[in-house]
Amino acid sequence: MKKIIEYIALIEEELAKISPTQEPKELYQPISYMLALGGKRIRPALLLLSNNLFGGKDENAIHAALAVEIFHNFTLLHDDIMDDAPLRRGQKTVYKKWGGNIAILAGDVMFVNSLQLLTKTPTNQLSNVLTLFNATAVQVCEGQQYDMNFEQQSDVSIDDYLNMIELKTAVLLAASLKMGALIGGTSEDDANHLYEFGKNLGISFQLMDDILDLYGDPEKFGKQVGGDILANKKTYLLLKAQELATGSLKKELEFCLGSTALKNEAKVEKVKAIFDQLNIKKLATDEMNLFYNSALSHLDSIDIDLEKKKPFEDFAKSIMHREQ
Amino acid sequence: MKKIIEYIALIEEELAKISPTQEPKELYQPISYMLALGGKRIRPALLLLSNNLFGGKDENAIHAALAVEIFHNFTLLHDDIMDDAPLRRGQKTVYKKWGGNIAILAGDVMFVNSLQLLTKTPTNQLSNVLTLFNATAVQVCEGQQYDMNFEQQSDVSIDDYLNMIELKTAVLLAASLKMGALIGGTSEDDANHLYEFGKNLGISFQLMDDILDLYGDPEKFGKQVGGDILANKKTYLLLKAQELATGSLKKELEFCLGSTALKNEAKVEKVKAIFDQLNIKKLATDEMNLFYNSALSHLDSIDIDLEKKKPFEDFAKSIMHREQ
Repeated sequence: MKKIIEYIALIEEELAKISPTQEPKELYQPISYMLALGGKRIRPALLLLSNNLFGGKDENAIHAALAVEIFHNFTLLHDDIMDDAPLRRGQKTVYKKWGGNIAILAGDVMFVNSLQLLTKTPTNQLSNVLTLFNATAVQVCEGQQYDMNFEQQSDVSIDDYLNMIELKTAVLLAASLKMGALIGGTSEDDANHLYEFGKNLGISFQLMDDILDLYGDPEKFGKQVGGDILANKKTYLLLKAQELATGSLKKELEFCLGSTALKNEAKVEKVKAIFDQLNIKKLATDEMNLFYNSALSHLDSIDIDLEKKKPFEDFAKSIMHREQ
Repeated sequence: MKKIIEYIALIEEELAKISPTQEPKELYQPISYMLALGGKRIRPALLLLSNNLFGGKDENAIHAALAVEIFHNFTLLHDDIMDDAPLRRGQKTVYKKWGGNIAILAGDVMFVNSLQLLTKTPTNQLSNVLTLFNATAVQVCEGQQYDMNFEQQSDVSIDDYLNMIELKTAVLLAASLKMGALIGGTSEDDANHLYEFGKNLGISFQLMDDILDLYGDPEKFGKQVGGDILANKKTYLLLKAQELATGSLKKELEFCLGSTALKNEAKVEKVKAIFDQLNIKKLATDEMNLFYNSALSHLDSIDIDLEKKKPFEDFAKSIMHREQ
């Protein structure tokens, strides 16, 4: 059985073959640039691993794997326009480097490219895989829309938030795993367990991200501590605090969010103190663990040797930075 | 055999079923709005007609027909952002009404929707139809990129121009006809003749558009006479004139294009006089007729009763405003 790291190398190799010299180069250079920016290539690697888990050959699933990675990069490319983002993986975004028009069109072509690759899936699974892929693509767009809505919306509930991160982040991981399973020829039941494994893992990963933004080791995490608080970002932490805070604590929290006079450090410190009073870190960690454990229990339910499932368990542990 | 007008009505009926109440409504209202703006629905109607020509049932091709129409509207939606267009069919563009972010995302979802519909194509033709659709989608994007390039580019040749309008406009009409033929179960050969019929017709239609912009009856055509000249748009007429003009005529033409002092009417009049000296109207009409006749000869080559092909011939004549 191949290791995930070997699959990542395979994906990098295949992506590198996508040439920037195609015409019109104004369109294909940005695509090649975007794909060369890197990324963890987790989704395609898991798709191949999942196909392999059920005895599928790599060559049957490689196109779907590349499709998922290129689709993911297409969504990032269009998101960068919507977010007016200057940087992506430390480099200029396509949007900032070539402008909005090229970024829109290059994204559109990447999306078609992903479908062209997907259409090379063996005929007996083509319809199933396409249906799942397209449904997932719609969900990812809906998730992005909810995320944009939330910026303007004052009454975002925890359920709204969990739904949003499920759509925007988790379903593509889930679908990658399920597509691999389908191409590998397993039962609908096992494929669905892998889907739920990916979905729950994706949600717990996003919750961990929210927690680490404030409570993580800044050196390890590589971001400014409390960046989400400074941006008034509606994370699980903030939404939970807004749900629980009453009386003067509630007023204080809203004051911090609304104040322009508060200096950055003071704002993070004050909001963190409110979170601590409300036990937010523990509540968020509990929620994260719920999803994480649900992911592992779906992995347990797959009717296959424990030993073969180990790479998935190891992967889950590794991305959650867990030691055991 | 159904008439094209009946198919157009069927398409309108099906499009009207697409509901704006889906959530998130911020995403689905613009989609519904865009689809309700109208349009001639030529592509899906021809797809159904072409399927019917070879004995295919409407219900096998209706999803592909809707897919083509929704895809076409997706390209218009994204084009409107790139062109900073205020109006589409006399109404505000989605871009101006809801902003760029919504317009990008709504377009993306429409594109996925078109693929979801296409995936409902009967299994035996699914892979063929998808492959053609995706290749066409890439071409349409490439055509849009060339069109944008041409605005900055000083050395656009007639061949470049013909290639651009083939990609941007003609191949989608061609592919619609071929998809219908494939779903209708005809031979690759007949399907290809229908493709070439559509492609050549599409190119000749665009050339007619270029001619009518300057030489059409303004009341019939509904646009400002010489709008393309005022915008320095690189149409067939202008490119041909630039190819042929020499000496003082060449200088005069470049002066007209570069001058900001010339009033609108004077500019149109002067450029038109240059075109007349170079016999541009006739040359453009000859070129248009070449493509038109090529379209009809491909229709001739299809191995089926003349009577059955008549709706296609009538359609070709009608869109070219020809009497015989």
